[in-house]
Amino acid sequence: MSFYAIIPAGGVGSRLWPLSRKAAPKFLADLTGVGRSLLQQTVDRLEPLMDQALIVTGSAYADAVAGQVPGAEVIVEPAARGTMGAIGLAAALIEQRDPDAVVGSFAADHIIEDESAFAQAVRSAIAAAEAGYVATIGITPTEPATAYGYIHAGSQALPGVRSVKEFVEKPDRATAQRYVATGEFFWNAGMFVARAQVLLDSLQRLHPEIATPLRALAAAWDGPARAQAVAEYWEALPNAVIDRAIAEPLASEGGVAVIPAVMGWSDVGDYASLAEVIDPAARANQVAPGGRAQQTLRIDSDGALIFSHSKPVVVVGVPGAVVVDMDDVILVTTQDRAQQVKSAVEALPLAGLGHLA
Amino acid sequence: MSFYAIIPAGGVGSRLWPLSRKAAPKFLADLTGVGRSLLQQTVDRLEPLMDQALIVTGSAYADAVAGQVPGAEVIVEPAARGTMGAIGLAAALIEQRDPDAVVGSFAADHIIEDESAFAQAVRSAIAAAEAGYVATIGITPTEPATAYGYIHAGSQALPGVRSVKEFVEKPDRATAQRYVATGEFFWNAGMFVARAQVLLDSLQRLHPEIATPLRALAAAWDGPARAQAVAEYWEALPNAVIDRAIAEPLASEGGVAVIPAVMGWSDVGDYASLAEVIDPAARANQVAPGGRAQQTLRIDSDGALIFSHSKPVVVVGVPGAVVVDMDDVILVTTQDRAQQVKSAVEALPLAGLGHLA
Repeated sequence: MSFYAIIPAGGVGSRLWPLSRKAAPKFLADLTGVGRSLLQQTVDRLEPLMDQALIVTGSAYADAVAGQVPGAEVIVEPAARGTMGAIGLAAALIEQRDPDAVVGSFAADHIIEDESAFAQAVRSAIAAAEAGYVATIGITPTEPATAYGYIHAGSQALPGVRSVKEFVEKPDRATAQRYVATGEFFWNAGMFVARAQVLLDSLQRLHPEIATPLRALAAAWDGPARAQAVAEYWEALPNAVIDRAIAEPLASEGGVAVIPAVMGWSDVGDYASLAEVIDPAARANQVAPGGRAQQTLRIDSDGALIFSHSKPVVVVGVPGAVVVDMDDVILVTTQDRAQQVKSAVEALPLAGLGHLA
Repeated sequence: MSFYAIIPAGGVGSRLWPLSRKAAPKFLADLTGVGRSLLQQTVDRLEPLMDQALIVTGSAYADAVAGQVPGAEVIVEPAARGTMGAIGLAAALIEQRDPDAVVGSFAADHIIEDESAFAQAVRSAIAAAEAGYVATIGITPTEPATAYGYIHAGSQALPGVRSVKEFVEKPDRATAQRYVATGEFFWNAGMFVARAQVLLDSLQRLHPEIATPLRALAAAWDGPARAQAVAEYWEALPNAVIDRAIAEPLASEGGVAVIPAVMGWSDVGDYASLAEVIDPAARANQVAPGGRAQQTLRIDSDGALIFSHSKPVVVVGVPGAVVVDMDDVILVTTQDRAQQVKSAVEALPLAGLGHLA
């Protein structure tokens, strides 16, 4: 049995602007200064577990992705069709080439600190997949977060594996607190592991309007008719997300299993969560992409996160500040207001700064 | 009768770092983007009132001062001896050259918005000086400020001129509120106008250990023995401030008069007061010295003060922010924490950034 990792790499990560740009999205950036981009880290941690990585990305990023991950197969999405389109195309390709294969989808831009816990969870997920489940890895909540969907776990299905009662949307704070208190809810990190055939057969049954063209496109992909098949099948493909298209309906039928895991996961969704994955002592001394290490000074500014580029940065009396000095722009905000960076990116064109987005 | 303006120009203004530096102090900077430094603005507003300006400064700034104000006489202080030394030396020189002259001292780094109100107050002060008073211009308080000393005014001495009961130190908030409520207290902006002889004679009587060497030095200043006289008299001169040495004791004798004035005065002591003298609409678009005008964007950051240098600045969710992008360093703080900038400057050497002070 072979295991293939499918890595959809598409999100720009605009709440991490200007570290993340349209032309240089989050997954291609080395946000934590470890010398590897988030995408490279994703592949690195899957390397011992998988036979092959398939990275699904837009044409704008294809060269950069191939450059960063020479061993992976880069699948260029003709146009965005949601995670179901991206993961479904890769899964259909794998099914075509290796009918018994297990596939797993993993976001390109998350951070996982405990790689051995991750590996163990993936191995359990593969076992559950071989048993016929669509398996997901559920992150044990460390706080009643409202930024993630939750997985409601049921009874034990296999050792270390629980059945999934349902997937629930991002909750409000009170609901999140109730979820966390029960011990039965886990964060949905978008990691799904299944036999390629199970995934495609489920999709065929639930959404034939998606599965049929994907399988037809996959059949033509490695031959001379790819371009024609793309034109025929992809353009008309409905936009869908895998959670809604497969995971939720299948869960209500008892077909989904969850592997609860504690592994230092972060979606690094904004500057607040980025700060959390950086050692507090190192927060003041991050180097912006393309920059040089600079001296920085924080006065009465605990936890301030500073990315310097070409000159020293001094922060006075702004605890939790975020200062990003890039080659072409400076961002100043706070970790408390990290969500608002997205609004700033949206407002850039109005300020005559659209070229910086 | 001639009127001479004495302008002690010495304070670095470290709470306005990095706009203000040891090597490029506040008084030499064009902080409000009007195209003239604070020193030049000081001379400009005195121009119609005075016969000559004497600027007393340290040797490090003498060339820059002479370059900025070609018409002024630049007096290089051999070493700092407080405002009494600086003003006293210039006043003694003027007394030597023009015994009937009236002199006035004016800080080099304040801003006055209403120049005609200023001119009127100075004319009243000159009239009071001719009548024998040491006259001061008292700023009508706009708030119960705790950053300034206050002048306690008594009854009318001349038209528009009141006697001074006493000078009081910087009060606490409650005391300041009491002062302001009475209508009898005015901010001490360090503006003193008197006949040179009155000033020196008063000093002679109150502090002969200061007046005697100053007069001896002044007598030698314009001749070949200046260097010798400096060595003989200046080194041993006591360090003193004019308020304590002359104004306070003379007030208790009834010898000081105050001209209350409303003239949009600011000592521009820190970024909070600098922001106040800049039109709110222009606060986000200041240009740092040596920089080029840049686009800036403020999201949910009312009143943020941005000095840009070479690239755009985006501030998100930090109302009252202060961002100063200079050629060699970036400062991020808030107007609320403006006082702490001084601590940052003091801490620069510890952070390996002493060269930026």
